Amino acid sequence: MSAPEKFSVTPQTRVRRSPARASYERAPAHAILDEALVASVGFVRDGQPFVIPMAVARDGERLLLHAASSSRVGAVLRAGARICVTVTLLDGVVFARSAMHHSLNYRSVVIMGAATELTTAEEKLSALARLVDHVLPGRAGQCRPPDAVELKATSVFALAIEEASVKCRQGGPLDDKEDLALPYWAGVVPLVQRALPPVADAAHPPRVAMPDGLAAYTRGRGAEGP
Amino acid sequence: MSAPEKFSVTPQTRVRRSPARASYERAPAHAILDEALVASVGFVRDGQPFVIPMAVARDGERLLLHAASSSRVGAVLRAGARICVTVTLLDGVVFARSAMHHSLNYRSVVIMGAATELTTAEEKLSALARLVDHVLPGRAGQCRPPDAVELKATSVFALAIEEASVKCRQGGPLDDKEDLALPYWAGVVPLVQRALPPVADAAHPPRVAMPDGLAAYTRGRGAEGP
Repeated sequence: MSAPEKFSVTPQTRVRRSPARASYERAPAHAILDEALVASVGFVRDGQPFVIPMAVARDGERLLLHAASSSRVGAVLRAGARICVTVTLLDGVVFARSAMHHSLNYRSVVIMGAATELTTAEEKLSALARLVDHVLPGRAGQCRPPDAVELKATSVFALAIEEASVKCRQGGPLDDKEDLALPYWAGVVPLVQRALPPVADAAHPPRVAMPDGLAAYTRGRGAEGP
Repeated sequence: MSAPEKFSVTPQTRVRRSPARASYERAPAHAILDEALVASVGFVRDGQPFVIPMAVARDGERLLLHAASSSRVGAVLRAGARICVTVTLLDGVVFARSAMHHSLNYRSVVIMGAATELTTAEEKLSALARLVDHVLPGRAGQCRPPDAVELKATSVFALAIEEASVKCRQGGPLDDKEDLALPYWAGVVPLVQRALPPVADAAHPPRVAMPDGLAAYTRGRGAEGP
């Protein structure tokens, strides 16, 4: 049975500011998560919020995270604490005629919940392969898989992509009508993430050629435009 | 009197994982904050961590944030709650011979503390100008400044850049010695944020020319390379 197209909105996931920019649909949430390489993971310890960057990957309706088994974030996730995972893709700088309406174009997803630890070797290997394939499809089959020691040292977690919301701003400046005639330029500078040509390991030159897909590595919108 | 070159390390700001990648120096923290357009701001409400993207700007030894006066994050900041502001700049994807040593190159800053609200019109105007100038130097003088209504609707906060740490990963893959002969490519795909040519407001074409500096807009490392 496939998941419904929309997330259920909760008091916590409901977007309060600029609700017209919010959405609770799976398709855009998945697209943003699939483009991103890094998420900001928020958790609480002794009342203090912590936000740390982590690599994530979507696996269907769940988000995969991994951490050193002995790490602070590993302990927090293992304990079943509520977390918040936020992904932000920056798409542009918006210049308006008024200071007030300067803005950024972006696409973001916020996911809340408690993660579940994956405990069997089979589940963990499969999730770690997904994390590697997220970076470059097929790569998990083009490197040495984790051995027993590495697997033990790494904790893997899954967070259901259910308590989630999407918020995006796109398009040009939205100036007040009475400002339109002011002698200031208004528009958008689009921003994209671009890959530069791959750099082979200089300390230990690889014995094989670069894998397909790496020379033209792109993520999402970085593929478009000049 | 100028601030010391290093931050004092607290139990909360001390980096536990890969401490060799950590630093507590002001100069790299400032450089990362000055390059970034977006921060991930973490706060706690009813035990649930929230992480939301916000535009920030550094003003000396403090980080400026702003929010709608009526917003949830505005209320949290005004109440003096502890927050965590994390900035992450993504610099590359690291491909190793083992799945385990795949990684990301990045530069990040984590700042904790309680923000202070700026309350006088003079302080608020100056901070909002700084936020606009952070995006494009000089821009605050090339747009209409906030009026009294806008100023009232906007709350502005300053967070001391004191409880702070820097963590960076740079360079090539770090494979285990016994993996070096494996028939897998290893290296880095550098990532940069690039600006595309500015797009003038199509709905209301500006009456003046694009400001200097916008045609060649860059941030940090986006300026380098091909």
